[in-house]
Amino acid sequence: MADAAVIDRTSDVARFREAIGDVPVIDDPTLVRLKSRDFYWFSPVLKDALDRKCADLVVSPRDEADIVAVARAAARFRVPITPRGGGTGNYGQAVPLAGGVILDMAGLDAIERIAPGRVRVRAGAILSDIDDALRSDGWELRMHPSTKRTATVGGFVAGGSGGVGSVTYGYLRELGNVLAARVVTVEDEPRILELTGRDALGINHAYGTTGIITALEMPMSRVWPWYDVVVATDDFSSAVRIGHRAALADGIVKKLLTPIAWPVPSYFRHFKNEFPPGRSCLIAMVAEPSLASFKDLVAGEGGDISYCAETAEGPGSRPLYECTWNHTTLHALKYDRQITYLQALYPADRLEEAVAEISALFGDELMPHLEFIRFNGRVTCSGLHLIRYTTNERLDEIFAMHEARGIPIANPHVFTLEDGTRHKRADADQLGFKREVDPYGLLNPGKMRSFAPVR
Amino acid sequence: MADAAVIDRTSDVARFREAIGDVPVIDDPTLVRLKSRDFYWFSPVLKDALDRKCADLVVSPRDEADIVAVARAAARFRVPITPRGGGTGNYGQAVPLAGGVILDMAGLDAIERIAPGRVRVRAGAILSDIDDALRSDGWELRMHPSTKRTATVGGFVAGGSGGVGSVTYGYLRELGNVLAARVVTVEDEPRILELTGRDALGINHAYGTTGIITALEMPMSRVWPWYDVVVATDDFSSAVRIGHRAALADGIVKKLLTPIAWPVPSYFRHFKNEFPPGRSCLIAMVAEPSLASFKDLVAGEGGDISYCAETAEGPGSRPLYECTWNHTTLHALKYDRQITYLQALYPADRLEEAVAEISALFGDELMPHLEFIRFNGRVTCSGLHLIRYTTNERLDEIFAMHEARGIPIANPHVFTLEDGTRHKRADADQLGFKREVDPYGLLNPGKMRSFAPVR
Repeated sequence: MADAAVIDRTSDVARFREAIGDVPVIDDPTLVRLKSRDFYWFSPVLKDALDRKCADLVVSPRDEADIVAVARAAARFRVPITPRGGGTGNYGQAVPLAGGVILDMAGLDAIERIAPGRVRVRAGAILSDIDDALRSDGWELRMHPSTKRTATVGGFVAGGSGGVGSVTYGYLRELGNVLAARVVTVEDEPRILELTGRDALGINHAYGTTGIITALEMPMSRVWPWYDVVVATDDFSSAVRIGHRAALADGIVKKLLTPIAWPVPSYFRHFKNEFPPGRSCLIAMVAEPSLASFKDLVAGEGGDISYCAETAEGPGSRPLYECTWNHTTLHALKYDRQITYLQALYPADRLEEAVAEISALFGDELMPHLEFIRFNGRVTCSGLHLIRYTTNERLDEIFAMHEARGIPIANPHVFTLEDGTRHKRADADQLGFKREVDPYGLLNPGKMRSFAPVR
Repeated sequence: MADAAVIDRTSDVARFREAIGDVPVIDDPTLVRLKSRDFYWFSPVLKDALDRKCADLVVSPRDEADIVAVARAAARFRVPITPRGGGTGNYGQAVPLAGGVILDMAGLDAIERIAPGRVRVRAGAILSDIDDALRSDGWELRMHPSTKRTATVGGFVAGGSGGVGSVTYGYLRELGNVLAARVVTVEDEPRILELTGRDALGINHAYGTTGIITALEMPMSRVWPWYDVVVATDDFSSAVRIGHRAALADGIVKKLLTPIAWPVPSYFRHFKNEFPPGRSCLIAMVAEPSLASFKDLVAGEGGDISYCAETAEGPGSRPLYECTWNHTTLHALKYDRQITYLQALYPADRLEEAVAEISALFGDELMPHLEFIRFNGRVTCSGLHLIRYTTNERLDEIFAMHEARGIPIANPHVFTLEDGTRHKRADADQLGFKREVDPYGLLNPGKMRSFAPVR
């Protein structure tokens, strides 16, 4: 583990600042504190652990040359760097564990190249800006988080698993979902690496600890006229069953299938008319040509369509995907700060049974929220259930009860990369790669806890 | 079962001909015989059963009004009608079992309307002509048979299960893969029915016995720069394993994954350089943006790419899909008329084991050929193995040995709709629908054997 104390003794932020010349910086304490935070407070555990963590300085590079200058100076003066995108992560990805500088990537937001099926963008580009630019050519990104309108592509790839679109394309880590990545190493003489294919996947879900991502090449899909649909159901298991049928229907083009149990829809304060009181529901995004088929399927399974309209993403509009994935949690937290959540992976071959088992086990303590995904080529669900929080011990107990039933947990209440995975360890390739690109261990030291600096 | 003898006694082709006025007909016996045939001779059993079946007349409607006139006259004079597309079917779909007229749909070939994600076409349009017309708008059909360059869309939907593209979208019968169908009934006063959604699927795989299809609305997908790839492998099981990994990789856009065992590639006389002698292979069609990821996957699994080039479909070119699906069988038959084939559905959850079991069981008698498909939302394989034919009894025995191992057979050596399905019976909805649209049982009488005319 990188020793934060050692770094504090040797790092020299003042000389670092001198060395980076005219690269813009912010040192106003309020602003620095603001940029040192993300949505870690979703978790009461992380809130306790990270609330006082803060950088010394925010650096705002204008281009890749600035980033190289920052990386060189950081290596020389042993200053920790925490790259930051939109700050929408909720595992403390953008919270500096050992001070140093926040590298605010917002200035690198250009769309560099659009080619058939692929787009090359700088890491700081906002996801919805990318989609807006692609739309006229008939393309869009394959997937995005529910925070599409504020999150950056670099932050999504560095810190995310998947999101809206994963019901069709699987998670970001699947081969083909990130085509190439450009990375600046943190060394005395920083190198610029162009990673492609399987190598490019090495930067996914490393929280920016395996090199500073400056550009990404992402695959695109055909843009569709998408429809937001709410299917009201008599009970949660019906919402799951209808979602499951739709997820398995390969002829229906969709981007989102989200079963949610009542009372969760009551937390969506801006969406009162879409969700009938007292009923569970399935939120869906379906491409217009598949809409009639989807409605046929829903009618055949006894669901009632309570809302159906073209997805609106312009200013002032509210796309329904902002009720899904971790936005669901956000809406609930705005009502009740005692609510938190978990992340579970359901087994594909006994999905509906396992969901019913968990619902029955916890009663009101757990409010079910699922996201249909493809995982290793199979349709299954990610569980993002809301939990009425009592103690950390009970939270651990709830997780253990899931795992005992063959439902692995990716714990969102820990701040290290390893503890947040289903396997509780860093990938060997990822560790080896970190050794190459960050030998001093300066990229948010402590985040990848199993890494020991090589020099 | 429709009684062919009854029909013969009452049908009056001469008066039918008079009644249809100026609708073009062909009565030259050689031409009528030619148009009464399809690729049924793939099967030695069907060859015996159908070789002498022939229509009395070919009718060539110019538009839907002609078809209504034909249907009215056929109902009045009890003349059987067998609709015909490109004649590329291989279960005798276009062979008239009880004489009467062949309805040659070639004249109805217009593309009526292209809208985002959907195209409306007349039933006689050739599939490759449709794709050619869609390409400039950035679209293509989701799937097509290996006979894309000669088959009609009506014939494909009426007689086909799936094909190139089914590895992504599943079979035609899946919800969303046929959006609407326009059908003329065969009654005293023919009606024109517009079927949508689930109803439209009632005409799929009914061999034209449930109404005369005049137009179809089909879903489209984004057109890609497709690449034909041959992966040479040390053994057949490696080709299956690599194909399976690629089929499960939702981030890789593909249209075809076809494992084929040596010596089958030796039958592809026009593709000598693409297939290294003595080696099994996987044929793939991969979208350009996914090509690097696919190559990574292949390299990681020990396959060798022996051929990779953009799919060429122009005149004189040879797309590799013309080595797959039932074209594989066709190439083999050109070498050796004693070769025939079967159609098996492998279980998704023990796919590789079941394939290995079958390969070991039959030795040289069975030459493995698989097509990866999605079926009910799961990745699995359709087996189109080549068989060195000896007797009908042995063929039945081979089928029984498959079914005993949980691998259902859709028998391509029978000419009724029911016997060719995995369930050996007609769908109740399909039978009911036929009663409505063809009360006299005039649409290729005998083809749907469980149907009894209502009048």
